[in-house]
Amino acid sequence: MTETNKTWVLRSRPVGDIKDGDLELVESPLAPLADGEVRARTIYLSLDPTNRIWMSDVDAYLPPVGLGDTMRGGGIGVITESRFDGLQPGDVVNTGLAHWALYNTLPGASLAKLPTLPGVPLTAFTGPLGATGMTAYFGLMDIAKPKAGETVVVSAAAGAVGSMVGQIAKIQGCRVVGIAGSDAKCKWLVETAGLDAAINYKTEDVGAALDKHCPDGIDINFENVGGEIMDAVIARLNDFSRMPLCGLISTYNATDPVPGPYNFANLLMRRTLVKGFIVIDYFPRFPEGIQQMAMWLMEGKLKFETDIVQGFENAPASLSRLFEGKNLGKLVVQVSDEPK
Amino acid sequence: MTETNKTWVLRSRPVGDIKDGDLELVESPLAPLADGEVRARTIYLSLDPTNRIWMSDVDAYLPPVGLGDTMRGGGIGVITESRFDGLQPGDVVNTGLAHWALYNTLPGASLAKLPTLPGVPLTAFTGPLGATGMTAYFGLMDIAKPKAGETVVVSAAAGAVGSMVGQIAKIQGCRVVGIAGSDAKCKWLVETAGLDAAINYKTEDVGAALDKHCPDGIDINFENVGGEIMDAVIARLNDFSRMPLCGLISTYNATDPVPGPYNFANLLMRRTLVKGFIVIDYFPRFPEGIQQMAMWLMEGKLKFETDIVQGFENAPASLSRLFEGKNLGKLVVQVSDEPK
Repeated sequence: MTETNKTWVLRSRPVGDIKDGDLELVESPLAPLADGEVRARTIYLSLDPTNRIWMSDVDAYLPPVGLGDTMRGGGIGVITESRFDGLQPGDVVNTGLAHWALYNTLPGASLAKLPTLPGVPLTAFTGPLGATGMTAYFGLMDIAKPKAGETVVVSAAAGAVGSMVGQIAKIQGCRVVGIAGSDAKCKWLVETAGLDAAINYKTEDVGAALDKHCPDGIDINFENVGGEIMDAVIARLNDFSRMPLCGLISTYNATDPVPGPYNFANLLMRRTLVKGFIVIDYFPRFPEGIQQMAMWLMEGKLKFETDIVQGFENAPASLSRLFEGKNLGKLVVQVSDEPK
Repeated sequence: MTETNKTWVLRSRPVGDIKDGDLELVESPLAPLADGEVRARTIYLSLDPTNRIWMSDVDAYLPPVGLGDTMRGGGIGVITESRFDGLQPGDVVNTGLAHWALYNTLPGASLAKLPTLPGVPLTAFTGPLGATGMTAYFGLMDIAKPKAGETVVVSAAAGAVGSMVGQIAKIQGCRVVGIAGSDAKCKWLVETAGLDAAINYKTEDVGAALDKHCPDGIDINFENVGGEIMDAVIARLNDFSRMPLCGLISTYNATDPVPGPYNFANLLMRRTLVKGFIVIDYFPRFPEGIQQMAMWLMEGKLKFETDIVQGFENAPASLSRLFEGKNLGKLVVQVSDEPK
């Protein structure tokens, strides 16, 4: 039995980009389990934009991680010890809101053994069947309520959330245009994910490209990014459009106040519904979302990519891949091997 | 029978504030009525912030008024001639989306005779029982869905819409804080309208005053103004707050791009619902709103003020009262006498 844990501890709050020393890898002894607890060895650590939010001393949807505390995060783990009747060593679980740790000690009652789905790799539970998949599913289906024939635009379209949003919208019969940051991502969006068009915001005039690819205007803007791209989309919204407000990744590293959309008044003129949401609010409905997404996955209707970085020691540096737009699909750190 | 009409014609699009010459008062002959038409002499012309929007060449919720066209607007009129069976000379009607004209020629089928309500003056049909009252009623009740005990903030609180929003929210059992631009308005809001507190944004630090008067945060922001006041309110929204986006009067005269709220990200973190709306979308439900507002009026639960400017020739200059914050309650121009 392993007696030593490794965890990433927050030492200083990043100013702008994360720098060496903001997080420190520390070793600590593992305490014996209490009744009802289990120990899970992390297989895949999920890296998400929200990790960056939690490092800042701002009043977000959860309190910031305290200085000196272990970084908050989740992923897929395998049970190594259990004092909870419902879980046995070898069971694989989604650790939920746990820690950046080689081993997490968790209340067994908060976890459920993941099912084995034919042809679906374990990494799917970090993406389409994990928090990012649920973010896409509920943000689009519950807030935006797409109707066949409508035009949907999604930003950060090749990311973990965006890549699912675009494909779910296609399943609903929508015209879907994705905005992403490289030709390779745009190619994936059209050729693999089956979107109607993709816009490379780094090389194209986003407004002109939206005019070209959305000749009937935009009914749904699934917002992941903020900033100028959001403004260009807002300017082209149709009457009674909907805008699930999922993320504003362009602003999370900002050190100065960020102006809201210059086209804010268009939200009034177009009678747009904007709804901020955080996926944890949908936690009670996760089974419904996972069931539907698993069905689509097994039917081959959802493609997904996982950007896997090897080695727990690379977690902090890898987070920057999200902000530099380097990942295609879900970014994870592989901390240990999958069970045989 | 009067043979000559007077109308205000848009000659040039205002840059910033409306200036002399942007509108011109012209006389024109009255054409004979066609079958189904009626002629209504304007008694009260309604002046509203939206009039200013219609003068700009922007893609708002209705097309702009064309240069050389009669200014769009509505109010209360009395039928002087009728070729429509349902209306007779002497009947009083709400002219709806008509024109800035001494006489409007209208399809009779689009109008309904206004009822006489005991103790309720005719001006009520320009305010609580008119478009501004319906804006307040549906924006608050249908979008914000107030619950007893919640905290509601309303900007432009002493205006035609805001003054109704605050009182309806009080009827729903909410704590209500109004933001207005003079001590006289604040006094009216607290002493006459019965709000819990009022903030004079011209003399007080709005953020500090909101902190004081909203110790439990803000559940509903009924937005009429935009700009810095909106930002201060957004910063203090509670989780799952609602924000009917009714007006952005602080920006309508702007000549440069206006940044959206700097606290836009808080709409995400707080899972706020923002919903732009235009009262004409609720037209099919007006009878429901008018019935409820009339009931409250007759029960003495709604106080209202009408800021009456005498003389049709003063219409364009009087519109600036809205932007300078001079009006308490509904601003109208009295164009002709009420029927005896």
